[in-house]
Amino acid sequence: MPGMVFSELTPVAFAARAAKVFADRLAVVDGDLRYSYAELWHRAQALAGVLDGHGVRPGDRVAVLAPNTHVLLEAHYGVPLAGAVLVALNTRLAPAEIAYILDHSAPAVVIVDASCRDVLTEALKHSAIRPAVIDSGRPHDAYESLLAGATPRAVAVTDERSLLSINYTSGTTGRPKGVMYHHRGAYLQALAMAYHAQLDTSARFLWTLPMFHTNGWCFPWAVTAAGAVHHCLRKVHPPDVWRAIRESGVTHFCAAPTVLAMLADDPAAAAPAPHPVRAFVGGAPPWPALLARMSTLGIEIRHLYGLTETFGPAVVCDEQPEWRDLPLARRAPLMARQGIANVIAEPLRVVDPHGADVPADGSTLGEIVLRGNDVMLGYYRDAEATAAAATTDGWFRSGDLGVMHPDGYVELRDRAKDVIISGGENITCVEVESALAEHPAVLEAAVVGAPHPKWGEVPVAYVMLRADASVTEAELVTFVRARIAGFKAPRRVVFGELPKTSTGKVQKNLLRERSARVATDRPDEP
Amino acid sequence: MPGMVFSELTPVAFAARAAKVFADRLAVVDGDLRYSYAELWHRAQALAGVLDGHGVRPGDRVAVLAPNTHVLLEAHYGVPLAGAVLVALNTRLAPAEIAYILDHSAPAVVIVDASCRDVLTEALKHSAIRPAVIDSGRPHDAYESLLAGATPRAVAVTDERSLLSINYTSGTTGRPKGVMYHHRGAYLQALAMAYHAQLDTSARFLWTLPMFHTNGWCFPWAVTAAGAVHHCLRKVHPPDVWRAIRESGVTHFCAAPTVLAMLADDPAAAAPAPHPVRAFVGGAPPWPALLARMSTLGIEIRHLYGLTETFGPAVVCDEQPEWRDLPLARRAPLMARQGIANVIAEPLRVVDPHGADVPADGSTLGEIVLRGNDVMLGYYRDAEATAAAATTDGWFRSGDLGVMHPDGYVELRDRAKDVIISGGENITCVEVESALAEHPAVLEAAVVGAPHPKWGEVPVAYVMLRADASVTEAELVTFVRARIAGFKAPRRVVFGELPKTSTGKVQKNLLRERSARVATDRPDEP
Repeated sequence: MPGMVFSELTPVAFAARAAKVFADRLAVVDGDLRYSYAELWHRAQALAGVLDGHGVRPGDRVAVLAPNTHVLLEAHYGVPLAGAVLVALNTRLAPAEIAYILDHSAPAVVIVDASCRDVLTEALKHSAIRPAVIDSGRPHDAYESLLAGATPRAVAVTDERSLLSINYTSGTTGRPKGVMYHHRGAYLQALAMAYHAQLDTSARFLWTLPMFHTNGWCFPWAVTAAGAVHHCLRKVHPPDVWRAIRESGVTHFCAAPTVLAMLADDPAAAAPAPHPVRAFVGGAPPWPALLARMSTLGIEIRHLYGLTETFGPAVVCDEQPEWRDLPLARRAPLMARQGIANVIAEPLRVVDPHGADVPADGSTLGEIVLRGNDVMLGYYRDAEATAAAATTDGWFRSGDLGVMHPDGYVELRDRAKDVIISGGENITCVEVESALAEHPAVLEAAVVGAPHPKWGEVPVAYVMLRADASVTEAELVTFVRARIAGFKAPRRVVFGELPKTSTGKVQKNLLRERSARVATDRPDEP
Repeated sequence: MPGMVFSELTPVAFAARAAKVFADRLAVVDGDLRYSYAELWHRAQALAGVLDGHGVRPGDRVAVLAPNTHVLLEAHYGVPLAGAVLVALNTRLAPAEIAYILDHSAPAVVIVDASCRDVLTEALKHSAIRPAVIDSGRPHDAYESLLAGATPRAVAVTDERSLLSINYTSGTTGRPKGVMYHHRGAYLQALAMAYHAQLDTSARFLWTLPMFHTNGWCFPWAVTAAGAVHHCLRKVHPPDVWRAIRESGVTHFCAAPTVLAMLADDPAAAAPAPHPVRAFVGGAPPWPALLARMSTLGIEIRHLYGLTETFGPAVVCDEQPEWRDLPLARRAPLMARQGIANVIAEPLRVVDPHGADVPADGSTLGEIVLRGNDVMLGYYRDAEATAAAATTDGWFRSGDLGVMHPDGYVELRDRAKDVIISGGENITCVEVESALAEHPAVLEAAVVGAPHPKWGEVPVAYVMLRADASVTEAELVTFVRARIAGFKAPRRVVFGELPKTSTGKVQKNLLRERSARVATDRPDEP
């Protein structure tokens, strides 16, 4: 039609809108710094001007190496406002790993926080590229001086399906892959997060989830869409989280279950939160005792599931009204499931090796596949991996195994490679881990398969105990056997800290290597 | 990228998702009928099959003449599933008016409720078209038989910017215009409504707002997106609304302020609602006494604003946390404003005759203009009106006059033609009406300009009193003069029922005609 104009879907629009409709509302808290939405928008446009002055052209990459500061948040707007592509680097990586990503993404500019300056300097020694580096994170530093002198800039998005950011995976094996996000997907995913989290202008969101991790599940954009407050946090230290809840009125945050367990164990957890708090939990399912404990602390838990390839949580375990009156023992397993497609996602499927849906019986294992606007464009500069991930019908193969329950909720059973085949029977590591986690002495447990001459594989458990707790290997095995089939109980239990990736995932590849050397010659159970 | 597939944005997708993730949840209540989301989806696909059997081809129009029944709801999915275009007809129109719309939209099929059969028969006598007619709304009628025998059908949307529905305006003058909705806009607007209304699976939405009115502000799709319950209602009768709240657990509904006033006046309003209820109010701003009364009844009010051309509410008066502690006298005027762009809308603007933004000072009058994904494709078969509505930069001219407040909230002052120019001074009818509505005896008030030999125009008020209330013309004028400038007070007050359009808007054109005959020879105020 002549005259009528569609808007391209881009999450940058949420900041433009917030600058108009929430201009004087508090947008960002970072230490002693406070920015309104008008200021956030101005700073983002100034950053775009700075990047332009550094020769950044549309399509160029701009990397940021910083914890959850206002600078990294501003980059989620300022980089696309320059027409450029954001690469948020994982601060927990080693210099050589960062160098690999720098070489692969070839950013024209790297913005670095003072706390990461040494790592970047070291990484650049290993790297072939020579980007401009902008120091940030301290008063009167280069970043602030440049912003102060910049000419604001705002390059319009002309194609919502174009590249917005690259998020590098922290795969437990192999080289990280660069997952390409498009504007359309980030816009819709941010709307879904604002909707499911019920964010509005009375909300204050604590940045416990790293923004470098799948662009913080798109919350940098969702929180702005809602006109809520971004409460920045450099490091997840339980007393600081409690202080942010009690003294600064934080109402929402995202975390892995282990972070919640740390919060529950902290001395500050003596009294519940002074107002309702919602925690969005991902990375692993919350266990019943944790759900119960969080509930008494006034922290309501929602389990979310997704992958870097799906803009974070494509799946949400929305609580159904009927669940609220159930006893915890029945409610907890429902809430620990991965859930249903979020409001903008296509319903996910669980398929057999031929691509057909498995029955929705809560027991037939299949691979979880996803499709739609919240699936990546592909892997950056990796046509081979992109082709491998996408089937001919466009369904992205997650590599995760799960079941479809009769109520339409999906439950993850394991990564494809985390299924242990023992004597021809499938054991999913998750069910053994869940049984172990029910023991009051257990803080965290990871189970992997170890080769076994008779059974093919047997489960071996790695367990981290709570600070003052103790339990023997035999006691734990007995405890598990009282809960699940005997053949699923661990043949060995190894106590100690669990090896983790920089994003907090247990490195099962390392545990599998270690298990191959663990004796599993225990006699068969009677 | 090879393999990855974007989904076209269409509100039909919400039903497809609900059928998967909320399959067994209650979707529709209509009298004694109950349908789950799996059933709703099946019935919608069956309807598409029926339409196909009736020769409906993609792009053809299908009209529905029905009150808020499950049939009209099903048509919001079944018609697009046939690739066809929904024309929901206003049941309050006269046969000749319906005939005009039938001739203009030329539907291949008309689905009619039994209660509207006579009107349709009469309309078809005036009409040049001979559509197939499917009778509905009674057990074992043609609609149900056809559905039972149909082959389900689901035509995929291949272009989200294509035509989804045509909504005919009920303009107070001239012929109705056919506003063309696209799939993309309806999808995004439905998401915005689900977000701002905080709909989820625990919500039950009462269908007080006619679905034929701007496709029910896109709630036929928003409620489904949330997996909430559609509670159908054939007629807005206050005791029935209270019964739905008290006995059926209704949590949300949409209405004009006069409907709320009727609810408040009903004997059933002796006790407050047993649980929190949210009412979305449009058509006119809620007045302070109504806000206060609704609050004591446990019904929280949100004011929304939009036009047929903007998929209904492009603007929402979201409550800010700071307002909650204000006394009603300060809070009510804030909440009676039209508000801010909804989460998916581009920020609306208030512009002067040259198209420049007026200052955000809360007093400079300008025209409200809107743009973006929630603006229509244009007027059906009316290129001239389409061209007139869209300026060269794509901003839709609403014809409404308002001001921009410093906090970014827009307040409607009047339709362009509802400004009275008296002695060179502007009087907006809304401010006079608001002053009148504060009087406890006044149920409704409408103010128009009447020609005057000395002042050019003077305000004349038409007032409908509450059932048992009484007040004199002189008392009301004194009451108003105590609140606003003397020259704005009505020169005459005429008591009686207000003439309204079929969608409940006061027919100011009729009042203006009548006012021209009303003597306005009262002496000037001292």
